[in-house]
Amino acid sequence: MRAALALARRGLGNTWPNPAVGCVLVKDGRVVGRGWTQPGGRPHAETEALRRAGPAARGATAYVTLEPCSHWGRTPPCCDALTQAGVARVVCAMRDPDSRVDGRGFLRLREAGISVEEGLCGAEARAVNAGFIKRILHGLPLVTLKLATTLDGRIATGTGESRWITGPEARRAAHGLRAQHDAVLVGSGTVLMDDPELTTRLPGAKPVADLRVIADARLRTPATARLVVTARSVPTWLMTAPGHPPPALAPFQDAGVEVLKVPRAEGGLELRELLRALARRGVTRVLAEGGAGIAAALLREGLVDRLAWFHAPGVMGGDGMPAAYPLPVTSLAGMPRFRRIASRALGADLLTEFEAEER
Amino acid sequence: MRAALALARRGLGNTWPNPAVGCVLVKDGRVVGRGWTQPGGRPHAETEALRRAGPAARGATAYVTLEPCSHWGRTPPCCDALTQAGVARVVCAMRDPDSRVDGRGFLRLREAGISVEEGLCGAEARAVNAGFIKRILHGLPLVTLKLATTLDGRIATGTGESRWITGPEARRAAHGLRAQHDAVLVGSGTVLMDDPELTTRLPGAKPVADLRVIADARLRTPATARLVVTARSVPTWLMTAPGHPPPALAPFQDAGVEVLKVPRAEGGLELRELLRALARRGVTRVLAEGGAGIAAALLREGLVDRLAWFHAPGVMGGDGMPAAYPLPVTSLAGMPRFRRIASRALGADLLTEFEAEER
Repeated sequence: MRAALALARRGLGNTWPNPAVGCVLVKDGRVVGRGWTQPGGRPHAETEALRRAGPAARGATAYVTLEPCSHWGRTPPCCDALTQAGVARVVCAMRDPDSRVDGRGFLRLREAGISVEEGLCGAEARAVNAGFIKRILHGLPLVTLKLATTLDGRIATGTGESRWITGPEARRAAHGLRAQHDAVLVGSGTVLMDDPELTTRLPGAKPVADLRVIADARLRTPATARLVVTARSVPTWLMTAPGHPPPALAPFQDAGVEVLKVPRAEGGLELRELLRALARRGVTRVLAEGGAGIAAALLREGLVDRLAWFHAPGVMGGDGMPAAYPLPVTSLAGMPRFRRIASRALGADLLTEFEAEER
Repeated sequence: MRAALALARRGLGNTWPNPAVGCVLVKDGRVVGRGWTQPGGRPHAETEALRRAGPAARGATAYVTLEPCSHWGRTPPCCDALTQAGVARVVCAMRDPDSRVDGRGFLRLREAGISVEEGLCGAEARAVNAGFIKRILHGLPLVTLKLATTLDGRIATGTGESRWITGPEARRAAHGLRAQHDAVLVGSGTVLMDDPELTTRLPGAKPVADLRVIADARLRTPATARLVVTARSVPTWLMTAPGHPPPALAPFQDAGVEVLKVPRAEGGLELRELLRALARRGVTRVLAEGGAGIAAALLREGLVDRLAWFHAPGVMGGDGMPAAYPLPVTSLAGMPRFRRIASRALGADLLTEFEAEER
């Protein structure tokens, strides 16, 4: 099952709206097929593993990280494929919370005479599927807030110099994070200051294009921004407040940017609604990359599920740009707190990953 | 030698003005005596080890972390003690840079017919003796800047609430840091805001009293501050600018606080001169505990040798109190940078230790 989970992780960031699933077929103690959800979400992991196994699948045990689907989507149900291939036993890490499945897959397999076990490595599978689960159950994507700061939490000098606070190893890891998320989210302040491209520049890491999302209530993004001019090659969505006249939107739409309306909130957009809009479109995992306004709004609203914090070994002092604008926090008890999952050195820098504490 | 270095570390923080030394006597493959510099700097490590070994020292090898002294101070030279005890061989980690020794110890031992080797574990010994070496060679103590912040580098809420940002494990480690330094340094802002006691509250950790140093150019410290009212039980030095009338100093002196004059600098005291004054008095290791003004001034002047940064897993946002006031840093290239030495989890918090990059 751990091998199947590792395969599943390969798909993270490019299978949406489908979950990233892994499947390993074992027969007589030997692996006869392996598969994971392919870019765009199809073929499914089981189909891939069965294809590779061929006739060897007959009598095999399938280890699958998520309950096989029982319904017709754009592909036939995986349950039927497993049955037809003559698989004898299915071991599954977790039930699929999608109301179209939710135990029906297990039922259908059992009805076909296949032995089914569920729950092996359930916690790991829930972690891998966290974005998919959150979207299905709560209508929101999983949000990872990524920050790269000095030890004293500054993302740039007071004059806006931010390239580069962290070293090459940390930046490579940050690109890896992008590859594992469906979409990258930035505010218009970051567009104005850094004019980023937000693509994944890791050779061979991501076969499908990133989705880039700009939160920009006031349409401050210039039509000459890199995100706009490259929108035909990499999908770009501009989330803005209602009420802008069509001519104000036209330059973006002409460049291939999709414009979506989100209710306005104090200081920007209603980020919960922005995320809901992304989830409705199928996005399961969002990497929020800045800046301080987006970070503060996400933290304030309790919308940060995971935190990836790169600390560079420098101290900027009080006039550096803060990682997050005032939330505000008026007492220590009211401060957003996280639980450390992992910490590792990346060259001179340190990456620490956290998950939100239960509320 | 590693055992001797471990013994030496036991003395850190309470042997000043003497170095913290460790000594292990080995004979026929068996440890016959161990010693380390005792509180207050006497007896020396060698004397202690010889006392414990008794007649067994005859023919033994002494592993010593620093060259044995050759001069009469308040105690007779350790060289003579080793010779009289009949030690056959002395293995030493490093030469003592003190001009009263500086090779004379080795010479004196060799003249007495003892075989001498030097340099074993030299780098480790230099690290242990860093404060002593810096004081001897540069007339300055080793300065460790300790900070306990949120992930975004805040030491308190905007309203000043700072108890406690870090958890009990981190606070215990912070007390351990105090115990390993000769003196704790704070600015008057920290005295006003936190009214700290700055003692080492670790059972049995430190047999001699801490030295507490307040940097306070404008005499803002209240005579009712805990540091002042406890000055008779724990030594407290108030470093202030010249020119205050005697009646302004009297309440401190009456309480047992020693008042020292240091030249004034923009925004406070000339910290390099403050540290020189401490070194002249014999202080070898200073732990700077805050606040943001002291931190900024030390960083600006390049006076921070080591950094001990406790990161709590919370995010405060832009209205929290910064770890350091503006240095100012106008370009990334001009930012003080450090080299990571170690990083460890302390409960929910993370302690990362750094040393200054060579300039």
